[in-house]
Amino acid sequence: MLYLIGLGLSHEKDITVRGLETVKKCKRVYLEAYTSILMAADKSSLESFYGREVILADRELVESGSDTILENAQEDDVAFLVVGDVFGATTHTDLVIRARELNIKVEAIHNASVMNAVGACGLQLYTFGQTVSIVFFTENWRPDSFYDKVMENRRIGLHTLLLLDIKVKEPNINELMKGRVVYEPPRYMSVATCCQQLLEIEEKRQEGAYTPATPCVAVSRLGSPTQTFKAATLKELAEYDAGEPLHSVVMLGRQVHELELDYLLEFADDKDAFKEAVTQDQKFFAKN
Amino acid sequence: MLYLIGLGLSHEKDITVRGLETVKKCKRVYLEAYTSILMAADKSSLESFYGREVILADRELVESGSDTILENAQEDDVAFLVVGDVFGATTHTDLVIRARELNIKVEAIHNASVMNAVGACGLQLYTFGQTVSIVFFTENWRPDSFYDKVMENRRIGLHTLLLLDIKVKEPNINELMKGRVVYEPPRYMSVATCCQQLLEIEEKRQEGAYTPATPCVAVSRLGSPTQTFKAATLKELAEYDAGEPLHSVVMLGRQVHELELDYLLEFADDKDAFKEAVTQDQKFFAKN
Repeated sequence: MLYLIGLGLSHEKDITVRGLETVKKCKRVYLEAYTSILMAADKSSLESFYGREVILADRELVESGSDTILENAQEDDVAFLVVGDVFGATTHTDLVIRARELNIKVEAIHNASVMNAVGACGLQLYTFGQTVSIVFFTENWRPDSFYDKVMENRRIGLHTLLLLDIKVKEPNINELMKGRVVYEPPRYMSVATCCQQLLEIEEKRQEGAYTPATPCVAVSRLGSPTQTFKAATLKELAEYDAGEPLHSVVMLGRQVHELELDYLLEFADDKDAFKEAVTQDQKFFAKN
Repeated sequence: MLYLIGLGLSHEKDITVRGLETVKKCKRVYLEAYTSILMAADKSSLESFYGREVILADRELVESGSDTILENAQEDDVAFLVVGDVFGATTHTDLVIRARELNIKVEAIHNASVMNAVGACGLQLYTFGQTVSIVFFTENWRPDSFYDKVMENRRIGLHTLLLLDIKVKEPNINELMKGRVVYEPPRYMSVATCCQQLLEIEEKRQEGAYTPATPCVAVSRLGSPTQTFKAATLKELAEYDAGEPLHSVVMLGRQVHELELDYLLEFADDKDAFKEAVTQDQKFFAKN
């Protein structure tokens, strides 16, 4: 049996009781370690909590070496641990399809992920549109396909969750060209970088998907003891220091109910200014 | 301190380890018992698992009697348990705002909810639009505001999660008029009822938000041992027996990737017919 087990967002103890019991009985335990990280735990703290060896599964192992992960899982119980919930990333769907082909039974043990826990900022999950990923811009690669999606969401009044890039275990390109594999230190996109990139693309596209005055919420370390929200305009968040990773951003849509606004104001430095930004933004696309 | 604790979807053991430790130390433990139910647990099984009395919190207590729940929570630890994750329903946001006003600290312990666990059907969470609620039609009340939302989602190619009505502890109207409070037996909307209501509204509105041939996924008992998915057209699901509650429905959008389709075909009775329905549906709104 292959068990896909969500670990939740932060602590070792964010695993469910059923998830923990399952990990303890599995023969091999893999931790998917490249699409996200647990903020308050690492390999060794998980190992001591589970009483089991934990094998880190990098992108290469999951995407090309899935047969290693699935080896003899027709007979043995294998756990594949995923930060957040188990179906956040396409690669995990792929692993399930591969398991099915090998006649391996699969069971998912779900957990919280940013996709539902973001409701803690006070915005109703019902009025979120499609989720977008913001990747690190490089000198030559500044992809802006997210812009159309944000536009689509905001045209119909919906909030947008922006998931920020993380780079773990990325090989250094210069070293790679010399035939050596040397990994870069991990990088986690900050709220400020994300908002700067958004402003750059609006400046370039000028189609008015949003403006520097569009209200947003910075989400820092969601589900961890130091979780923080900051409600401010996009321009303000482009200069905001959100502290340690992981970060996300929510861009508001026009559909902001009074209760949502009440809740958000708690996170605004200047409540009147934020309220005014929301009022102004509600006129945006109001005719669509 | 007020702890809002998500219980996940089905078993007692779907609570997180941190959630369980917190419940065990709380002075009072409330279970929100009107927006959803735990499929494989009840008050008494939770009480024996927690070693704590569990107080059922109905709509009246949560919405009008929040001061009872929050009594002395400045000093005492109080747990408020919610099926799924904690911020699924507006009423819980309201409780947090009330706690803040009373200077009570609040901590959320998150868990899986249908909003993220629905990824188990194989459709990518990134391409879901706004979520809609489908309520039981009555003779005189057949609300169709969901229709515009589904239209908005499908115009931009997004999937729609439809959450189905549940009625627990609803007073019988006839008895109420006689001055007696008698509760109706609980009712949970089925996949078939939902799809019949959708067909009725399309028939009435004729605006083409969807057709009887639109591909959908029936989601039964998500996260429970008897979890089942069925991929079929809306018309087929209007006659599908999805078994015991709880049910949800996903209506597909145009943006179906090959990997998503591969995954879904596993749940189709007639794979070729379902594939063809998806192909046809992808032409729908393709010009927008």
